[in-house]
Amino acid sequence: MTEIKIKKSAYHLNDEIAAKNHAELRKHGIFALNVMGAPGSGKTTLLENILPELLSAYKTAVIEGDLATENDAERIRKTGVPAYQINTNGGCHLDAKMVEKELKKIDLDQTELIVIENVGNLVCPINFNLGEDLRIVVLSTPEGEDKPLKYPPAMMKTDAVVISKTDIAPYMDIDPEVIKKNILQINPKVCILEAGKINGVYQKDAVVAFLKDSIEKHQAR
Amino acid sequence: MTEIKIKKSAYHLNDEIAAKNHAELRKHGIFALNVMGAPGSGKTTLLENILPELLSAYKTAVIEGDLATENDAERIRKTGVPAYQINTNGGCHLDAKMVEKELKKIDLDQTELIVIENVGNLVCPINFNLGEDLRIVVLSTPEGEDKPLKYPPAMMKTDAVVISKTDIAPYMDIDPEVIKKNILQINPKVCILEAGKINGVYQKDAVVAFLKDSIEKHQAR
Repeated sequence: MTEIKIKKSAYHLNDEIAAKNHAELRKHGIFALNVMGAPGSGKTTLLENILPELLSAYKTAVIEGDLATENDAERIRKTGVPAYQINTNGGCHLDAKMVEKELKKIDLDQTELIVIENVGNLVCPINFNLGEDLRIVVLSTPEGEDKPLKYPPAMMKTDAVVISKTDIAPYMDIDPEVIKKNILQINPKVCILEAGKINGVYQKDAVVAFLKDSIEKHQAR
Repeated sequence: MTEIKIKKSAYHLNDEIAAKNHAELRKHGIFALNVMGAPGSGKTTLLENILPELLSAYKTAVIEGDLATENDAERIRKTGVPAYQINTNGGCHLDAKMVEKELKKIDLDQTELIVIENVGNLVCPINFNLGEDLRIVVLSTPEGEDKPLKYPPAMMKTDAVVISKTDIAPYMDIDPEVIKKNILQINPKVCILEAGKINGVYQKDAVVAFLKDSIEKHQAR
């Protein structure tokens, strides 16, 4: 029983800092996106592909979360977007306090969009608000057709699910339509997008359009 | 600071129950294997392929860990091995107490090998001993070449890493040799095995041989 009390308190504490982050971001008119998904689901690859388009429309910065290495931040910087790497040193998710600390390094007056790539984990990050406006979960086809049913919180507590690596599905006897059906069984209202290569070209347009639309709606508020 | 104290205490409490589980298993001459890896890394597929061979040598039972559904236990039962499904209801790892409860359902006098498939998560399960004799981490090639560097605890705290879905690697421009090099950079002593399809046939022999060898050494003790 003690443990449950502690957990609630940890979430509560996190929510308080997340609300402060959100207020700070709103004050500067910044839209924040939290990108989650299993290790290797293709979160960084998605960002590499959509960031050039987003950067042409918004002043953008990226916060990268990983247990170890600066690898992902380095990949992001090659797109021209400044990237700030958080190393959790074994921690399984980003929390609002880590993001609060990173926000202090960013020139918020010169920023319109902050993309946060969470630690690769389809479970824990879902429970920690960071102060974001929008959530995306990346789910890759090689993870299997029944993944949405086995990880329901990740499907429920997100605005959109991006099904990635659709080009690999035929080689694995995996049907993206079954994945979609299973996502909608858990969350009938979620937006489902696809991202994979066609003839070697990464299909990013649906995700970019969804994000631009979400940002416009947010700015109009 | 309070939070750190609580965490240590939770690990300590888990270790105590894990030691009890281990003593109980040893009393019955049972070898226990803990299989970990990211969502969709191919843990259940590996078990489906190796269990028939293990079953012909040892009286085997499987404990399945998932956030939700009985899907994996049902897949395992088709191999002829009895499977006990734990649903963590959102929990990100199995702990020793969950396994202790499950062990009471199994006829330990009629069991020689227990295989525990953990929740799909490359971070949290690593920190929770269940009372097992051996650990395997399954790492699938679509997760990417740099995954070992980004998830060092999973590489350090395991006896073997099984690189799965090697047949998909060429379609994704991923080199399993680079994955191996990165695993060994983190843990030079770990055993690395491969599992993937060749001409449509799952290559299970290396994993089966490694497990049989580990079990024999354990029995000789």
